[in-house]
Amino acid sequence: MSIDRKKLPPRTVERLSKYRRLLSKYSHNEEHFIFSHDLARLLNLTSVQVRRDLMLIGVSGNHRKGYNVKKLITLISEIIDAESGHNLAIVGMGNLGRAVTAFIRKNETKMNLVAGFDIDSNKTDKEIAGVPCHHISSMAEKIRELEIDIAVLTISPDAVLDVVKLLVETGIRGLLNFTSVHLDVPEHVYLKNYDIITSLEEIGFFIKEPL
Amino acid sequence: MSIDRKKLPPRTVERLSKYRRLLSKYSHNEEHFIFSHDLARLLNLTSVQVRRDLMLIGVSGNHRKGYNVKKLITLISEIIDAESGHNLAIVGMGNLGRAVTAFIRKNETKMNLVAGFDIDSNKTDKEIAGVPCHHISSMAEKIRELEIDIAVLTISPDAVLDVVKLLVETGIRGLLNFTSVHLDVPEHVYLKNYDIITSLEEIGFFIKEPL
Repeated sequence: MSIDRKKLPPRTVERLSKYRRLLSKYSHNEEHFIFSHDLARLLNLTSVQVRRDLMLIGVSGNHRKGYNVKKLITLISEIIDAESGHNLAIVGMGNLGRAVTAFIRKNETKMNLVAGFDIDSNKTDKEIAGVPCHHISSMAEKIRELEIDIAVLTISPDAVLDVVKLLVETGIRGLLNFTSVHLDVPEHVYLKNYDIITSLEEIGFFIKEPL
Repeated sequence: MSIDRKKLPPRTVERLSKYRRLLSKYSHNEEHFIFSHDLARLLNLTSVQVRRDLMLIGVSGNHRKGYNVKKLITLISEIIDAESGHNLAIVGMGNLGRAVTAFIRKNETKMNLVAGFDIDSNKTDKEIAGVPCHHISSMAEKIRELEIDIAVLTISPDAVLDVVKLLVETGIRGLLNFTSVHLDVPEHVYLKNYDIITSLEEIGFFIKEPL
């Protein structure tokens, strides 16, 4: 492949991941081909968008048959997955942390969820939702030992700035932030924020006018 | 305002909501103006993007002073918020549902979280995380009674299709789907999906190459 992976836009990568998740549900089906407009419809996108994304990774569909599902899954995997899979940690094992843990463990992904961290000693030194939970005081040590490179922040907003400082010093390279606190991280750390309030406000906006 | 609200792109609305959330943290500050590049930096966007979004709602900053923070908050609110605020329900009061409930209640928003629903009678007919939780069998009735128009789906994937069918029949107009199950909804229902796996895969992709 002569694709410059670094040049793929984040939104395209996000959609490639969605295509793969959807396609993997269809790959056991007898129908081994799918059209861009079907993929688009199933994901609430336009078929132009789907074709553009797939062109970016060097794939064009067959006009009569569409895209070969298995080939497409393989190709997206080659592009998206790290060779060995990334090691993840959940920082904050409250309701949200446990829900995220359960969700990741239930879903197929190459990523390895290897640890949880919490400040509450009632939760530490045991398995929570199937993952070993350590006290946050041993976080730096465990991150190096377990080669964790991505952390999911489901911790209380008050604590998140100190925790992120430590994570960055320890060499974490990816963060998924659920706290709604603004984080300033060095350029080599890939930060993705998820804020449920903005999602709800977007929905509220688009349904504002009665039918 | 002569803005056609219907024509604002979803991503712009999402960012307007983010601008407002960030600005509201600064509005008590003596510094009542902010530059697009500061807003951009704080949200990991480009200043071109910020200026373009604000142009879409008819605002241009002062070259020397930037944007007036209070005016900007007021204007974004006029555009984004429904007059009375929307009524929300959480469907599925497990770990994720409770985390989402706590999060919404802690954060400032015009939306009113008025009910939770669950199938487990240990959770129903009482308050959970500060919100009355009803049995899912009374969902249609309660949605009409409480004029709920947005539902957050934090229910088990097995149950979600039946639940959504019922919600749509009952007149729900907005859905935030955390289940990772693909939903087919009528055009008048605004659906937003959040899938943590795609967020993690995006992060994993962009940190793939070692520094």
